[in-house]
Amino acid sequence: MDFSIIRIARTVLHVVDLQASRKFYVDGLGMIETESDENHIYLRGLEEHSHHSLLLKKAEKAAVEVISYKVQKEQDLDEIEKLFTSQGLKTKWLAKGQQFALGRTLRVHDISGIPLEFFAEMTVVDRMLQRYDHYRGAKIQRIDHVNCAVPDVQKAYDFYVNQLGFSCSEYTDTEDGDLWAAWLYRKPTVHDQAFMNGPGPKLHHFAYSVTDRLSILDCCDCLASMGYATSIERGPGRHGLSNAFFLYLRDPDGHRIELYTGDYLTSDPDLKPKRWDLNDPLRQTFWGHKAPDCWFTETSTFIDIDTGDEIASIEPLLEQRKPKIMA
Amino acid sequence: MDFSIIRIARTVLHVVDLQASRKFYVDGLGMIETESDENHIYLRGLEEHSHHSLLLKKAEKAAVEVISYKVQKEQDLDEIEKLFTSQGLKTKWLAKGQQFALGRTLRVHDISGIPLEFFAEMTVVDRMLQRYDHYRGAKIQRIDHVNCAVPDVQKAYDFYVNQLGFSCSEYTDTEDGDLWAAWLYRKPTVHDQAFMNGPGPKLHHFAYSVTDRLSILDCCDCLASMGYATSIERGPGRHGLSNAFFLYLRDPDGHRIELYTGDYLTSDPDLKPKRWDLNDPLRQTFWGHKAPDCWFTETSTFIDIDTGDEIASIEPLLEQRKPKIMA
Amino acid sequence: MDFSIIRIARTVLHVVDLQASRKFYVDGLGMIETESDENHIYLRGLEEHSHHSLLLKKAEKAAVEVISYKVQKEQDLDEIEKLFTSQGLKTKWLAKGQQFALGRTLRVHDISGIPLEFFAEMTVVDRMLQRYDHYRGAKIQRIDHVNCAVPDVQKAYDFYVNQLGFSCSEYTDTEDGDLWAAWLYRKPTVHDQAFMNGPGPKLHHFAYSVTDRLSILDCCDCLASMGYATSIERGPGRHGLSNAFFLYLRDPDGHRIELYTGDYLTSDPDLKPKRWDLNDPLRQTFWGHKAPDCWFTETSTFIDIDTGDEIASIEPLLEQRKPKIMA
Amino acid sequence: MDFSIIRIARTVLHVVDLQASRKFYVDGLGMIETESDENHIYLRGLEEHSHHSLLLKKAEKAAVEVISYKVQKEQDLDEIEKLFTSQGLKTKWLAKGQQFALGRTLRVHDISGIPLEFFAEMTVVDRMLQRYDHYRGAKIQRIDHVNCAVPDVQKAYDFYVNQLGFSCSEYTDTEDGDLWAAWLYRKPTVHDQAFMNGPGPKLHHFAYSVTDRLSILDCCDCLASMGYATSIERGPGRHGLSNAFFLYLRDPDGHRIELYTGDYLTSDPDLKPKRWDLNDPLRQTFWGHKAPDCWFTETSTFIDIDTGDEIASIEPLLEQRKPKIMA
Repeated sequence: MDFSIIRIARTVLHVVDLQASRKFYVDGLGMIETESDENHIYLRGLEEHSHHSLLLKKAEKAAVEVISYKVQKEQDLDEIEKLFTSQGLKTKWLAKGQQFALGRTLRVHDISGIPLEFFAEMTVVDRMLQRYDHYRGAKIQRIDHVNCAVPDVQKAYDFYVNQLGFSCSEYTDTEDGDLWAAWLYRKPTVHDQAFMNGPGPKLHHFAYSVTDRLSILDCCDCLASMGYATSIERGPGRHGLSNAFFLYLRDPDGHRIELYTGDYLTSDPDLKPKRWDLNDPLRQTFWGHKAPDCWFTETSTFIDIDTGDEIASIEPLLEQRKPKIMA
Repeated sequence: MDFSIIRIARTVLHVVDLQASRKFYVDGLGMIETESDENHIYLRGLEEHSHHSLLLKKAEKAAVEVISYKVQKEQDLDEIEKLFTSQGLKTKWLAKGQQFALGRTLRVHDISGIPLEFFAEMTVVDRMLQRYDHYRGAKIQRIDHVNCAVPDVQKAYDFYVNQLGFSCSEYTDTEDGDLWAAWLYRKPTVHDQAFMNGPGPKLHHFAYSVTDRLSILDCCDCLASMGYATSIERGPGRHGLSNAFFLYLRDPDGHRIELYTGDYLTSDPDLKPKRWDLNDPLRQTFWGHKAPDCWFTETSTFIDIDTGDEIASIEPLLEQRKPKIMA
Repeated sequence: MDFSIIRIARTVLHVVDLQASRKFYVDGLGMIETESDENHIYLRGLEEHSHHSLLLKKAEKAAVEVISYKVQKEQDLDEIEKLFTSQGLKTKWLAKGQQFALGRTLRVHDISGIPLEFFAEMTVVDRMLQRYDHYRGAKIQRIDHVNCAVPDVQKAYDFYVNQLGFSCSEYTDTEDGDLWAAWLYRKPTVHDQAFMNGPGPKLHHFAYSVTDRLSILDCCDCLASMGYATSIERGPGRHGLSNAFFLYLRDPDGHRIELYTGDYLTSDPDLKPKRWDLNDPLRQTFWGHKAPDCWFTETSTFIDIDTGDEIASIEPLLEQRKPKIMA
Repeated sequence: MDFSIIRIARTVLHVVDLQASRKFYVDGLGMIETESDENHIYLRGLEEHSHHSLLLKKAEKAAVEVISYKVQKEQDLDEIEKLFTSQGLKTKWLAKGQQFALGRTLRVHDISGIPLEFFAEMTVVDRMLQRYDHYRGAKIQRIDHVNCAVPDVQKAYDFYVNQLGFSCSEYTDTEDGDLWAAWLYRKPTVHDQAFMNGPGPKLHHFAYSVTDRLSILDCCDCLASMGYATSIERGPGRHGLSNAFFLYLRDPDGHRIELYTGDYLTSDPDLKPKRWDLNDPLRQTFWGHKAPDCWFTETSTFIDIDTGDEIASIEPLLEQRKPKIMA
C-alpha cells in the first residue's frame, strides 16, 4: 500500500433539531462544543486536539452523511483515489475549506456502499484534557470506532484488510464457518471499524472512548436526572468481544452512540485475531442484560455522496440475524 | 416502647450444596468465612465485627429459616416476647449457645407470618475492614436490609412502625392511595426491612452494603469469569427509591441477594417519608434495564419456627403485582 | 440524660471575601448554594434536606463563630441549658428567626471553651441527591464531623461522653497511657466530634462525607484546573483511624476542610472503642504522604458567643504535639 | 529507516531475594507469574499475550541488566545492528532460545550507554484480561514505558528521534532553552521511553499501565495491609506532563516502579510536541504532594552487556537537578 490511514476521525450526522442534540451531547454526554452556527454544531471529546469528531447538520430527516478517516499525509489521498477508481467505486473531491475546518477531502463509496471520507488536515484546537473544571456527564474523551451493518461481511473484510490495510483483532463465525462480524483497526486498539451481518449498508453505531467505567455510570445518572432515562438502550455491561465496558444510547434522532472503555493494545504483529462463535453467550455480553430487539433491528441510514439520496438496503447473505442464546 | 431494636443482623438460609454456596459467596462475592463445619457456613462482611450475618445450613430443600434482628440489651428480649405474646403471636426461646456464637434468642412469627429472631449477643470477631489483601469480588461490607413480599403491606407497616418502633423513609402508593410498598428502618439508613405487595409471606431478597459502585462492577466481572454470568438477574442500575446503585443476583439455590450502595442518612426527626406512585417510571429504576418477570414472581419460602414446615402463601390484597410502565 | 443530640449539623465561619469562598466551595467542591445575600452564603451537600450545613459570613477576619448540633426535639434545648448552667458554663438564647432558617437556638461554651450551638429546627429544603446534572467537583454529600484541638483531651472526652451522651469509637493514647485524641459520635458513624491534644480550643477542621474515593480524586483534578492545586494540604490517603479515605484542603481563608469517605457503622452496643498508640505509623496514615508541619500547627480560631472576641489559646497538657514516626 | 520498533517490551532486573520480589509483584501488585525456576521469575500484566514483560533474576546485587524493545520482524534486527555498528556502538547477538521464551536477540549499548535489547519474537501465552477472578492489587495491565536519567538529554533525544524513529510527545526546557527532559514514543501513547537530565545512564523507573485510578488506590490499600506502606514513595497524584494519574513504588531491591493511567493517544502526525518549563509547578505534579528528594537522587544501575560490570555514572550537562518550585 502506498498510503497510510491513521484512524477513524469523525461522523457527520443529519439531525432535525440542533438544540435538542446540543442538550443531549453537550449537557448530557459532556462533549465540547468547538464551534457552531445556525445549521451546524462541531463537537469533540476532551482529549481531542482536532477541531471536531462529530458534526451535526440541521436537516429535514435524520441520516448519516459520511464516516471520515484521517490519513498520514496529503498525497495519501491521491493514492486512495486511485484505488477506489481502479475498483470502479464512486469518488468525489472537496477542496480545502469547502468543508469548515477541513483540508482537501476525498469522498467515496466503499465496497459495501458506505459513504467514506478521507482527509489529512483538520484545524488543530486546544486539547481540553486538563480542563477538569469542564468535565460533565460521560466526560467523553475521543472517537473510538464505528460499526456498520453490511449484507456481505466477508466482502467488506477483504476490502478493508487487503485494499485499505486494516488488521483484524477479533471476529465472529457462524456455525457453518461463515464470517458473521469482524473488528478491524488502523490505530492499535481493537477497532476503528466493525462490520456485522445485517441489512445494509447501515450505521449501527458510532462510539466514543471514555476514561473509565464510572464515567459511564455518572453519565447514566446525569441522563436520568435530565429526563433521558429512556435514551439508554442497552447496558451498562461488559462485552466478551473487545473486553470493553459499554453503554448504548439513542440520541434525539435515534442515532446510536456507544460509550466504550477497557479494550486493549493491538500493536503487536504476532497478535492473532480472536475467533468467537456467533452463539457463544459470552461473546457479545460477557455479563449484562441481553440486548433488546431494537438493538438488532434499528440502524441509521446513509446517503449518497453525490445525490444525497438515501442508500437502499440490501438483505444480508447470512440468514442468522442475531445470536441464539438461551435466556 | 420498652425495648430498642438496633438493626437487621442476619439471615439463616437452607441450601442444598454447601460447597456450591461457598464458591458463590466467598470466591464470587468476597464474603469472609468466619467458621464452618460439615453442615454450616458462617459468613460476614469485611466491616462486620459480629461473628456472622449470613448462616448457610445444609438442607434437603432451599428455604429461609429466619431473619434476625439485634437488640440493645438482654432485657429487650423479654419486652419483645411480651409484645408478641400479647398479640397472640407464636414465640419460642433458644438458650445461649443453642445456636452457635449466639446468646439467648427469641424466635417469633410476625404479624404477616414471617419467622423473626431477636438477640442481644453474638460472638465478637475481628473486623476485616483494613485487611485489603483479603478483598475479593464485591468486597461485601455489611448486611443492609431484607425485603419481604406480604399480602397486606398496610398491616405489616402498622405492626413494624407502631409496635416495633420502626420509621418509614419512603413508600409506594397505588393510584387508589393504597400502600403498595414501604421502606422501614431502625439504623439510620433507608431501611432494615422493606415490604412489597405480593403473595406471601416470602423473602424477596436480602441485601448487603458495598463500598462503592465499582465494587459492584468488579463483582459482575468476577462472577462472569467464574461462569456465573447468568446469576446476574437484574442491574446494575440505580433505584429511584433509596437512590441506591444496585445489582440483584440469584445464589445457587435461587435465593436473591442484592448488592447495594449509595442511599442516605435518615437520622433526622424532621425527615418526612417520601411518597412514590407505583407507576412512576423513575421509582423502581431511576435508570437501567427493566426488571425481568422472574424478579417479580420468584421468591424464597419461609419455614415455621416450630414445625419447620413451609409457610403457605396468601394472595395479596392489592391486585396490581408490578408497576405499569411503558417500555 | 433527658435530651438527645442527633448529629453535627453546621459550622459558621467568618470569611473575608464571599466571592472567593463561593468559587472554592460551589465551583470547586460542588456544594449547593441554598441561598445568599451580600453578607452570607448558605451552603449544603447534595444529600442534605436541611437548609444549610455551612454558613459563611462576611467579616474583617477569618474565624469560627460556632459549631452546631441538631437535637431531637425543642424541649431538649431546655434540658441542655440546665446542664450547661449547672456546670457554670456560659449560655445564650437566640429566638426562632433571629438566625435565618433556624428555630430557637441555644449557644454555649463547652468545657474546653468551644462555642457550641444546639437547635431542633432548621428550614427543610429539597434534597438534591438525584439531581446528578448538578454534580460538580467533590460532589459533597453531607456534613460528617468536626475536629478540635483542645489542651485537655481527657476533660473534653469526659464531658462529651458522660454529660452529653456521646460514644467513643476510637482513641489514641501516648506511651504513658494518657488520652491524646478521641473520636466521639452521636449518629452511628465513627464521629461527629473529634478532639486532639494541642493549643486550644481551636477548630482543626470540619469534614464532609463524599460518595466514594473517585469523588475526591475528581475534586483534586477540578481544583488544579481552577488554580487551586496549592489548596490541597494533605492527601489523598487512607487513615488507619476510622479507615476513611481522606483529603485535606485549605479554603481561601485558611480554614481546613476534610473530604472523607469509607468509615463504618457504629450502631452496635457491643462495639468496643479501638485503641491506637500515638506513634503507631499506621494510625494517622494507613498509607499516604506524611502530614506536613502546617497540618499540625495551623488551626482556626473560635470567638466568644457574647463578645465576639477571639478565644485565647491554652497550651496542651501533654507535651507531645505530633506522632514520632520514622521517615 | 529500514526497521520498525513496535514498543517497549520488557525490563530485566537483578534482585537479591526472589521470594520477596514475588510477594511484592504478584501478591501486592497483581502481576501474573507466567513461569519461574529457582533463579528466575517471569511476570506479565493481565492484558499481555507475550510471555513476560518483567524478568527478575536472582543476583548478588540489585541492578538493571537490560531494557528490551520489540520490533516488527526478524530482519529489523539486522538493520538495527548495522545502525549501532555504524555508530561505533557495542552490539552482541543472543541466539533464539539462549534466553528463555525469546527469539534471536540483539543487545547493544545506546548513545548514552544504556543496555538495550531488540527482538521480534517472544513466546505467546494466554491473555488473562478476562480472568477477573485472578485480579489482585493494582491489576497491572501492560508495560507502558521506562524513564532513564542521562547526562545529555539532547544527545539521547537526537539518537532516538533521528536514528531509531521515535516521536516526541512532550518535553521540558530549562529557562535557558536547553532540553532537560523528553517523552518519546513508538506505540501511540505519550511514551515508551523518557529521558531526564541527571547523573547517568541510570534507570529512574519502569512503568505499568493500569485500567483506572481506583486500581492504584486499591493497590495502596493492599500494599499497606501487607506491610508495604513505606514502599509508596510518591503519589498518588496527577502529572501535568502526560496527564497520567500516577503512583511511584520502590520494590524490595529499591527498583522504582510507576503505576500509570490516563494519558492520551498520540497517533496523529499533526500533533505538536508539548513544551513545559522546568519550573512550571503544574508540569511534574498537576496536583499532589511534591516528590521527596529520594525520587530525584536514587536510581537503579545498569550493567554492561558483555562484562556485567556496573556502568559508571557521568555528571549531567545541565546544572539544575530538580525543578525550583516554591513550597
